[in-house]
Amino acid sequence: MLYNLGLIAVFVFAITGVLASAPKTQNIFSLVVLGLITSVGGGTIRDVILMVPVFWLTEFIYVWIAIAGSIAAFLLFRQLQRSINVLLYLDAIGVSIFAIEAMNKSYSVNANAGVAVIMGLITGIGGGILRDVLAGRPNLLVSQDLYASPILIGCIAYPILLRLLPNPETSQLVAMLLIFLMRAAAIHWNLRMPNWLHVKPTEAGQQKSDV
Amino acid sequence: MLYNLGLIAVFVFAITGVLASAPKTQNIFSLVVLGLITSVGGGTIRDVILMVPVFWLTEFIYVWIAIAGSIAAFLLFRQLQRSINVLLYLDAIGVSIFAIEAMNKSYSVNANAGVAVIMGLITGIGGGILRDVLAGRPNLLVSQDLYASPILIGCIAYPILLRLLPNPETSQLVAMLLIFLMRAAAIHWNLRMPNWLHVKPTEAGQQKSDV
Amino acid sequence: MLYNLGLIAVFVFAITGVLASAPKTQNIFSLVVLGLITSVGGGTIRDVILMVPVFWLTEFIYVWIAIAGSIAAFLLFRQLQRSINVLLYLDAIGVSIFAIEAMNKSYSVNANAGVAVIMGLITGIGGGILRDVLAGRPNLLVSQDLYASPILIGCIAYPILLRLLPNPETSQLVAMLLIFLMRAAAIHWNLRMPNWLHVKPTEAGQQKSDV
Repeated sequence: MLYNLGLIAVFVFAITGVLASAPKTQNIFSLVVLGLITSVGGGTIRDVILMVPVFWLTEFIYVWIAIAGSIAAFLLFRQLQRSINVLLYLDAIGVSIFAIEAMNKSYSVNANAGVAVIMGLITGIGGGILRDVLAGRPNLLVSQDLYASPILIGCIAYPILLRLLPNPETSQLVAMLLIFLMRAAAIHWNLRMPNWLHVKPTEAGQQKSDV
Repeated sequence: MLYNLGLIAVFVFAITGVLASAPKTQNIFSLVVLGLITSVGGGTIRDVILMVPVFWLTEFIYVWIAIAGSIAAFLLFRQLQRSINVLLYLDAIGVSIFAIEAMNKSYSVNANAGVAVIMGLITGIGGGILRDVLAGRPNLLVSQDLYASPILIGCIAYPILLRLLPNPETSQLVAMLLIFLMRAAAIHWNLRMPNWLHVKPTEAGQQKSDV
Repeated sequence: MLYNLGLIAVFVFAITGVLASAPKTQNIFSLVVLGLITSVGGGTIRDVILMVPVFWLTEFIYVWIAIAGSIAAFLLFRQLQRSINVLLYLDAIGVSIFAIEAMNKSYSVNANAGVAVIMGLITGIGGGILRDVLAGRPNLLVSQDLYASPILIGCIAYPILLRLLPNPETSQLVAMLLIFLMRAAAIHWNLRMPNWLHVKPTEAGQQKSDV
């Protein structure tokens, strides 16, 4: 079931990737490339750093699904733009699956919990960041959206849950649910990072810190 | 002969890399780095994803040629700027060789045709995109130039030609010629993507799609 | 001693990374990610290209130190902004250690001197460039600072020193000192690249070179 949900997630990522890129580039070729990068970019960086074969070299179905999602987004652009909220929730499901699955993959090559958390995060946000850099949009790291923090919290919770709960399947499900619920809350109430988690650099200091 | 043409291509890529970057940075050090990245960046990403040794680690001559091309571009800057059109055609020859050679390399490590097409594309456009991101210029994916699509079409044609034509050498030559001719036509007539291959997002939709 | 200095360098890189990013993003999560990328990004690219296990997968202490440095920078932001000059000198020490150590690592996997120089440079400037691209700031390659050239000169000097001087330890120390002193001079006198090392593209030429 997770495998099928993973394929749906790739499809949804490609759609949101195309919708996010369309203000910057409108031709189908660039949109398909950016949709594909949004879908498989994070997992590609993860696999390269872990030195395991990049997943879509052996499971090319992921590329086909991402291309299909991108073309669907191109053809049904206005309809999908109107249902962007539904897509955001589907994206939240996808990202929670991807992040925890990335941690399982890291554990399977004997990575420690810290590495696994980083891989969960890279897989969750890497594709979207790559897309934004290539499309010339402000990326997650400079936006105010609560996107990465829910993933980080869920990824940190997972190794703890693995110790507390009786079986790995439950831990995995709880960690995914945790990410999804935090992300859904952020979408629903349009949550932002609280103010005390921000620095307020002085104007003068900003210029001097230009290293 | 292809090997020698490949070296010439690297030299030309470095020159076009320097010319493209010069509006953004003017010092020789940055220009050589950006020329080098334009030349060998795409092939580096390809090799890292395919998990084969990066080509310039073993064939360091490519780096020397790219540095020589970058320095030549620095010294003969104004003359080369005036002959930019000749350089664009040489770049088109280079890119057609690089893309199809990248597909051969992918086949040689048992990649399927889909992976090979992606590797041909990455090798053809990866270096230029990396350069543009680092130089702070709009890249291929957001520009209107017909650069990537000819490469994509040629790369998709190659596996089909391999089945249709009697020997691989002919298929390779025809695929390269196909890329070169489409690219040359795009340069000569300043072709753009036709309108029906563009989405036209609504203003309101663009803001909502800001995921 | 070099190992301990290396850890201090990672701590300092994280701090300068946070200070440099703060004008673009202010929340603690993004700042820690950007501090971490500044610290370990260059070494990560080096290891991926050399096809050796990425250093922080096995020595995760580097990640902890970078996170600690980033959080310290977040908490003591205004104080650190005021002592940015001290940090720049510490950064210069760190970068000289990192660059030469990267060359030693390259030699240890039988890379030639050219590859080792490139790896020294990537390790020295890669993290800062990645950070700037992700934070949407102009990076080293388009700025006027003398940052990369001292590293390049020191890295080129190192293989020559290895032939001239009686033992590798002395060569290593002299090469590091060379990078540090050039970098310190650049900070102290606010040095820039001399004019004759710049091209002056014509306005018209710039537009035509838009390949």
